[in-house]
Amino acid sequence: MAKGHHADSSMGSSPMERKPRSSIVTLKDVAAAAGTSVSTVSLVMNHKSEARISKETVAKVLKAIDELGYRPNSLAQGLVRGSSNFIGFVTDLIATTPFAGQIISGAQKEAWRHGCVLLIANTEGNEQIERYAIAKFLDHKVKGVIYSTWYHHEVSVPDELEHTPTVLVNCSDPNSNVTSVIPDERRGGMAAAQMLINAGHRRIAFVNTTTDAPARVGRREGYLYALHEAGIHEDNALMFEAEPDQQGGKDIAPEILRSGVTGVCCHNDRMAMGLYDALRDRGLKIPENMSVVGFDNQEVIAANMSPPLSTVQLPHYELGIQGVNLLLEEIDTRKHYAFSRTISMDCPPVFRDSIRIVNSSLM
Amino acid sequence: MAKGHHADSSMGSSPMERKPRSSIVTLKDVAAAAGTSVSTVSLVMNHKSEARISKETVAKVLKAIDELGYRPNSLAQGLVRGSSNFIGFVTDLIATTPFAGQIISGAQKEAWRHGCVLLIANTEGNEQIERYAIAKFLDHKVKGVIYSTWYHHEVSVPDELEHTPTVLVNCSDPNSNVTSVIPDERRGGMAAAQMLINAGHRRIAFVNTTTDAPARVGRREGYLYALHEAGIHEDNALMFEAEPDQQGGKDIAPEILRSGVTGVCCHNDRMAMGLYDALRDRGLKIPENMSVVGFDNQEVIAANMSPPLSTVQLPHYELGIQGVNLLLEEIDTRKHYAFSRTISMDCPPVFRDSIRIVNSSLM
Repeated sequence: MAKGHHADSSMGSSPMERKPRSSIVTLKDVAAAAGTSVSTVSLVMNHKSEARISKETVAKVLKAIDELGYRPNSLAQGLVRGSSNFIGFVTDLIATTPFAGQIISGAQKEAWRHGCVLLIANTEGNEQIERYAIAKFLDHKVKGVIYSTWYHHEVSVPDELEHTPTVLVNCSDPNSNVTSVIPDERRGGMAAAQMLINAGHRRIAFVNTTTDAPARVGRREGYLYALHEAGIHEDNALMFEAEPDQQGGKDIAPEILRSGVTGVCCHNDRMAMGLYDALRDRGLKIPENMSVVGFDNQEVIAANMSPPLSTVQLPHYELGIQGVNLLLEEIDTRKHYAFSRTISMDCPPVFRDSIRIVNSSLM
Repeated sequence: MAKGHHADSSMGSSPMERKPRSSIVTLKDVAAAAGTSVSTVSLVMNHKSEARISKETVAKVLKAIDELGYRPNSLAQGLVRGSSNFIGFVTDLIATTPFAGQIISGAQKEAWRHGCVLLIANTEGNEQIERYAIAKFLDHKVKGVIYSTWYHHEVSVPDELEHTPTVLVNCSDPNSNVTSVIPDERRGGMAAAQMLINAGHRRIAFVNTTTDAPARVGRREGYLYALHEAGIHEDNALMFEAEPDQQGGKDIAPEILRSGVTGVCCHNDRMAMGLYDALRDRGLKIPENMSVVGFDNQEVIAANMSPPLSTVQLPHYELGIQGVNLLLEEIDTRKHYAFSRTISMDCPPVFRDSIRIVNSSLM
């Protein structure tokens, strides 16, 4: 617990008296308090025992440092080592939107295992803030930088990172050979459809997003591949498109119902929420009248829907862990890959009560 | 866009060739590339024009700096100025939980207005990470520190912050005189009840949280005060308690229904979600059979419920803005308040479709 301070009108009378909170304590202050010179203080702090400083002087200096709360600038350390135990984490919106925070959680956990701490800059897409933050990270000799986006899409790695170990997490740059770690949208799409197929469904709808992103292509491919593997013919009449949110799910409901499917793969959990509402408004029950699968396993939503929503996990936490691992590997081995590496991580199924098990003998 | 690199086996032959990404460029490298000495490079970088360096040399040095991508350690700047344009933002879970991210958003926005960038450390309650991050922030001479928690509760300001300008956001320390900015739980509780009272309701339930926190005391006070102001007698039989989540809302539903109230103030939106489910399971309609008010205005939930939930806004974004403002004020004025300041920010009502307007002539 912090101790109380009092506005200090007696400054100068007692060097050991605490300064007002907003003063920065300098080497000179420490030297004055210890009754010695700045160079002596510096020698003590750098553990230069060869400098033959008396034990009493050393003790006085250490006491002054402690009582004044002096923090040395990391300059000396930075100069000697060339880097610090920081990893810069640059993101657009992960820290401020309620979606992918687990990327930071996994990254920090893995960083800490290696004694590193993440310094996060959340730019909200402001390019100036991004440039300024990266410049500061480089000024402070971070070990490396994780560049991450709140949803999976393509980016351009900022030029300023050209000479710094960098790993992209949840995004990739097709024009750069920076290592990237992304979710495997295709495997995720497969997992979604397979939950329904394994439960005995054969007429399965797919509602894609209207937003252009890797998910739009990948999850659709996965859905089609899963059908193909199960010997189910694909049918354009069962493939729809809607806004990737609640309204989109609500809007597409009439078409879903007209199509005669028994189960539907929604682009994401929010779309599934809207579909739930629309079905309920029509007096229909999930999963009895319609089986529904979402995507994301979005915290606060999926598990808490009525009934809890079957969905696919976006492996945010694991993306964070893997990103830091790759970064530390590149730094340690000073390896530089002339060809880019993209690590795609599995998006596993999360089976809940929104899927009806079809008794095949009744079909 | 980043340009491609190739594993560099020809290092040393051409100083201007880009090094592999994971090498740190030092002053020595710049000096070698510019064909001059380290001290000359240093003088150029610190704009020491009195040092009489020829324009050609200056140009060579600047060119070498640019082509090698050299980033000076902030040491020189740190030494001269004593601080940087960083504000340290230490939090337990704001960046990784889907609840209070707007605190960071507001704080960064306000910081940027003043040319500052937030460096965020998200500790997830790990005391060692917290200590390490704070130590590093101090080492790097941050202007000051925002210490913030994902939900409003009491904390102990870490001792390490004793000599650094610090503001608490969304938390407070009763044993310290560090300035804090918190939500006004009592005004929020009043706002919730007043929405129902203004719509004509007189029998209003209050469901408190079982979790010990300022909200538990404050919102209840606000509810009682609103009733009192409206001339409605308080009634213990209409005051309940439940876990502050969906299950809690579901569990308390039978008692709410038995009490004969026409409206209910839930501790938070998640509890209201559970109450919605329970009422719907019984074939009841909101707001026709029961008016419901939540608290938080939690992104992804409140506005998207069916019907959209009336609630109270936790002013996360504004807390962030105010926190940074107070911090910069304390730094600029070097003011230190011997007595603590606590700024409580209003929690305004958000009126949506979950409240039935009672026609008083029918009562």
